[in-house]
Amino acid sequence: MTPRPPAEIGMSLDEVDTPALIIDLDAFERNLQRLPERIAGRGVRLRPHAKTHKCPVIALQQIARGAVGVCVQKVGEAEAMVHGGVADVLVTNEIVGRQKLRRLMALAHLARLGVCADDAGQIDALAAAAAEAGVTMPVYVEVNMGGNRCGVEPGAPALALARQVADSPHLAFAGLQAYHGSAQHLRGWEERRAAIAEAIAKAGSTRELIERDGISCPVVTGAGTGSFELEAASGVYTELQCGSYIFMDADYGRNLDPDGAPTRAFEPSLFVWATVMSRPTTERAIVDAGLKALAFDSGPPVVWDEPAATYERASDEHGRLAVTGATNRLFIGDKIRLVPGHCDPTVNLYDWYVGIRGNRVEAIWPITARGAGY
Amino acid sequence: MTPRPPAEIGMSLDEVDTPALIIDLDAFERNLQRLPERIAGRGVRLRPHAKTHKCPVIALQQIARGAVGVCVQKVGEAEAMVHGGVADVLVTNEIVGRQKLRRLMALAHLARLGVCADDAGQIDALAAAAAEAGVTMPVYVEVNMGGNRCGVEPGAPALALARQVADSPHLAFAGLQAYHGSAQHLRGWEERRAAIAEAIAKAGSTRELIERDGISCPVVTGAGTGSFELEAASGVYTELQCGSYIFMDADYGRNLDPDGAPTRAFEPSLFVWATVMSRPTTERAIVDAGLKALAFDSGPPVVWDEPAATYERASDEHGRLAVTGATNRLFIGDKIRLVPGHCDPTVNLYDWYVGIRGNRVEAIWPITARGAGY
Repeated sequence: MTPRPPAEIGMSLDEVDTPALIIDLDAFERNLQRLPERIAGRGVRLRPHAKTHKCPVIALQQIARGAVGVCVQKVGEAEAMVHGGVADVLVTNEIVGRQKLRRLMALAHLARLGVCADDAGQIDALAAAAAEAGVTMPVYVEVNMGGNRCGVEPGAPALALARQVADSPHLAFAGLQAYHGSAQHLRGWEERRAAIAEAIAKAGSTRELIERDGISCPVVTGAGTGSFELEAASGVYTELQCGSYIFMDADYGRNLDPDGAPTRAFEPSLFVWATVMSRPTTERAIVDAGLKALAFDSGPPVVWDEPAATYERASDEHGRLAVTGATNRLFIGDKIRLVPGHCDPTVNLYDWYVGIRGNRVEAIWPITARGAGY
Repeated sequence: MTPRPPAEIGMSLDEVDTPALIIDLDAFERNLQRLPERIAGRGVRLRPHAKTHKCPVIALQQIARGAVGVCVQKVGEAEAMVHGGVADVLVTNEIVGRQKLRRLMALAHLARLGVCADDAGQIDALAAAAAEAGVTMPVYVEVNMGGNRCGVEPGAPALALARQVADSPHLAFAGLQAYHGSAQHLRGWEERRAAIAEAIAKAGSTRELIERDGISCPVVTGAGTGSFELEAASGVYTELQCGSYIFMDADYGRNLDPDGAPTRAFEPSLFVWATVMSRPTTERAIVDAGLKALAFDSGPPVVWDEPAATYERASDEHGRLAVTGATNRLFIGDKIRLVPGHCDPTVNLYDWYVGIRGNRVEAIWPITARGAGY
């Protein structure tokens, strides 16, 4: 069941119950603004990925700042976005199974939808579902950029699928899904530049092949928070899918800018608010946020309010901070901010964002696509 | 928001949408029955930990098989259990903050509650909250068994807190919380035996010290799925807190029995049901269950229905299976069972259990304490 929110509008931050997922609204709004500024004049469209935030309230703020719509990964996320007022949603993923395809096609009566495919049988299934629903569905062929997850190989295999889509009644070939996910977290700028240069070459030559075959390929969509300036300048990509830029996380914060310094493109705006619940020794502080309050796939959180303390070990409901004499300011009952290692799966553990301005709760936004795995 | 369930009663398993959290009801019921059988005649009580399942429907089945009540870690979990019909709930954790203490004490008007403490200031806060609510709250002193998380040191420090509780109006000293969590996953039986022997010695000598001081110490509570037979035979522990035994998980499955074989005490009954959504190459199958569908802190899931395939890498919404020629039976649209590496935080990602008997959906149970972090 959806728990009640851990806060009320007008409360001070100290009164917010823990663990809670809090947004520093000033930092968040600076991030929101900075991405469109960085790509201004490049002639590329912004379609942020809502898999990061899972919240139509945030999607509409991105659209108000120029985004053409959002991306999602799941039909349940697409439903949450469309039902929350988003008029243009691209599912950057393969959708398999009759139930899910029916739900996807039903949404196309309410909003502009799009979906990906990387298999001939799947294109047949999409065509049948679109025909049943009486809609024409834009389909993007997903191309493997080197992450070796979903996606057909570039070149001729992608052309064959594009041709099949173009020839299918009730489907419209919309372009290429060309996201290079595994390049986003390469630490050095030069490493990322080299990986994205390969993606640009693969996407560009595949688009050419398709267009030489007489099929229009209006969109090449991809890019993330770690690489978007490269795709924006490529002349190949027409649309950017950055998601994490609004929040950042400890992992993205370890990426380096071209000058070798930790990235300054965006700033942390998302925190887990936690309480010190036990101080059994001077070297040990236990907080009430563990594996059920934070994602650990990209490492432990950074202790934002007490940088000398390190989050040393998580168990299900506890986090153990290693502290030293210098950090013995952490007393039982103190509340502190933790920067999650990885924002997307951390957000998926919460039902509410608590938006903070200064020291005051200004906003409580429902994470309506939390748990929308299907 | 709570999503609708991924299944309906009477469906066949193949029709259940994915990712879903499914219970093999036959295996689950064998596990449910086996634990009380294993401790029969030992004179110890069973108080299973509901942090594993977060579901009062399951708690009541445990109680129907002889459990005296359940344990939880969070006030929100206690609320879910009491509101779901459980009459006896022990919070095996420190509860910090005025709001949470008020909620805890309010529950004591509806059910028998208990709570832990490891700090003198916290005992004062508990006493004040109990007085405000007009209840007498049973308090267990949590003792550090070697896991170095919460808990006061054994011996004199524990006695001092027991004395303070016993002398506090509105509090009743109930016993010792003596759980040795980090011993549960030591692989070899002899390692676990040695670690639990130390815990038994610490808990036993602390209880003696307290009773010599004229304070009755009726309960020593602790133990987990990896060690419960040792505590049951100890003559010191009076209550067992096993949680994972009902489901097991890949990590507990790697524990060894006294004969050196993988544990046969319980069997896997909890699975994530996933769909193969992409087969880009013969060596690669992508499923729709990644970091938002499975916990990875104890390693990747085991591919139950295709043991030759290994779950190689997770991203947020995808899992990459490494397959070989021998396992090329996995086609797009096929659904398979994955055994989670760690059951508790995996359960916390879902709103519903889908109970399967044979090939038919027999039960849909709400995970009412999912997300009950505060």
